[in-house]
Amino acid sequence: MYTLFHHPFCPLSRFVRLALGEHGLDLRLVEERPWERRAAFLALNPAGTTPVLIADARPAIPGAGVICEFLDESHGPSLGDRRLLPTVMDDRIEVRRLVSWFNEKFFEEASGPLVTERIYKRFMSEEDGGGPPAMDVIRAATANVRYHLAYIGWLARTRNFLAGDQLSYADLAAAAHLSAIDYLGDVPWTEDEAAKAWYARVKSRPSFRPLLSEWLAGVPASRTYVDLDF
Amino acid sequence: MYTLFHHPFCPLSRFVRLALGEHGLDLRLVEERPWERRAAFLALNPAGTTPVLIADARPAIPGAGVICEFLDESHGPSLGDRRLLPTVMDDRIEVRRLVSWFNEKFFEEASGPLVTERIYKRFMSEEDGGGPPAMDVIRAATANVRYHLAYIGWLARTRNFLAGDQLSYADLAAAAHLSAIDYLGDVPWTEDEAAKAWYARVKSRPSFRPLLSEWLAGVPASRTYVDLDF
Repeated sequence: MYTLFHHPFCPLSRFVRLALGEHGLDLRLVEERPWERRAAFLALNPAGTTPVLIADARPAIPGAGVICEFLDESHGPSLGDRRLLPTVMDDRIEVRRLVSWFNEKFFEEASGPLVTERIYKRFMSEEDGGGPPAMDVIRAATANVRYHLAYIGWLARTRNFLAGDQLSYADLAAAAHLSAIDYLGDVPWTEDEAAKAWYARVKSRPSFRPLLSEWLAGVPASRTYVDLDF
Repeated sequence: MYTLFHHPFCPLSRFVRLALGEHGLDLRLVEERPWERRAAFLALNPAGTTPVLIADARPAIPGAGVICEFLDESHGPSLGDRRLLPTVMDDRIEVRRLVSWFNEKFFEEASGPLVTERIYKRFMSEEDGGGPPAMDVIRAATANVRYHLAYIGWLARTRNFLAGDQLSYADLAAAAHLSAIDYLGDVPWTEDEAAKAWYARVKSRPSFRPLLSEWLAGVPASRTYVDLDF
């Protein structure tokens, strides 16, 4: 049994939930508000960020990248030829490149600022940086979503899944970040049919269902969020 | 034979150079100015960032994290009990946690902005963002160096090397980032004796020598940069 310290709209936490779901692993969720900097949470992860995975009799496993490598090493082999980090080296390079692309670059340029401005800031106290969203930050981030969506579309047109023939952690990472900002209506799906068709396939997987049932009081989900045929 | 597209003061490139050095691997260096966004470089790494490692007959390997996993999988076993990513799972978690700490958090909060403001901006054209350094950015980053140095000191006081008993990628990552900003005189060594003693040990390794011979025209190195007994 795993425990995940997460925030329901943290894109990196969503990635870990999808990965655990694809591995068929049971999970207990603990909601963390990382901006509150709880002492007990900082003891688990001095970086103070979500996600943090707790496995029995192990040190806390912080960060999407470290968790991803841990899951593959611990549970990858039992997936057989559906392994989410392939065993061929060139394929591993490509999956890791794209996981890093989405969990670092997309997060920094798009999903991170959008979730912070539109969701986290509602719950933050003034001294933690709460308040109305910064519209210039949102404008820059939504512009970045468009070029990322075009890149996803290009990958989806040239391959079956984003990193190659099979579903991999790269698809889960991309879909996790998109799902968080799709809730906010920040994905211009009509701009890229291939990206949209790829996302519809990933979104219909059973591992995705728990994410789609996350609703935020006071912030209604976009029209496309739950609809599998958006 | 490997080829590394790097910048001599990119902390992440320095990490890869140290890692290749510890593995005893030969390396050809190609200096890249990532802000110029050369088309041929973007074809190797669409993210447009250094480092990118080229290995014969493989796709380009972009990013310090992806390169680190690649090196360990390809060359780790031959290091035997000096392997830089240990084989015991709990130790792997700790090494990866700290590699991510330095290559992402320290880079974002301290070494990245300092190198950009003080070095890269000298070479950038005005339209690329060149010009005089932003003093508020430098002030924030140098304040962050102090708390990172205290964390390194705390790790060094409780362990032989940063992640445990043995030298690991965590030490190479920390030392790489520190070396880039030490050139600029931005490390307050007198504030933490344990951090300083740990750095002196890592700095005296043969893998470090090529870094210490990097000099930048017009920007003299700090007094402590080359001195092994600083």
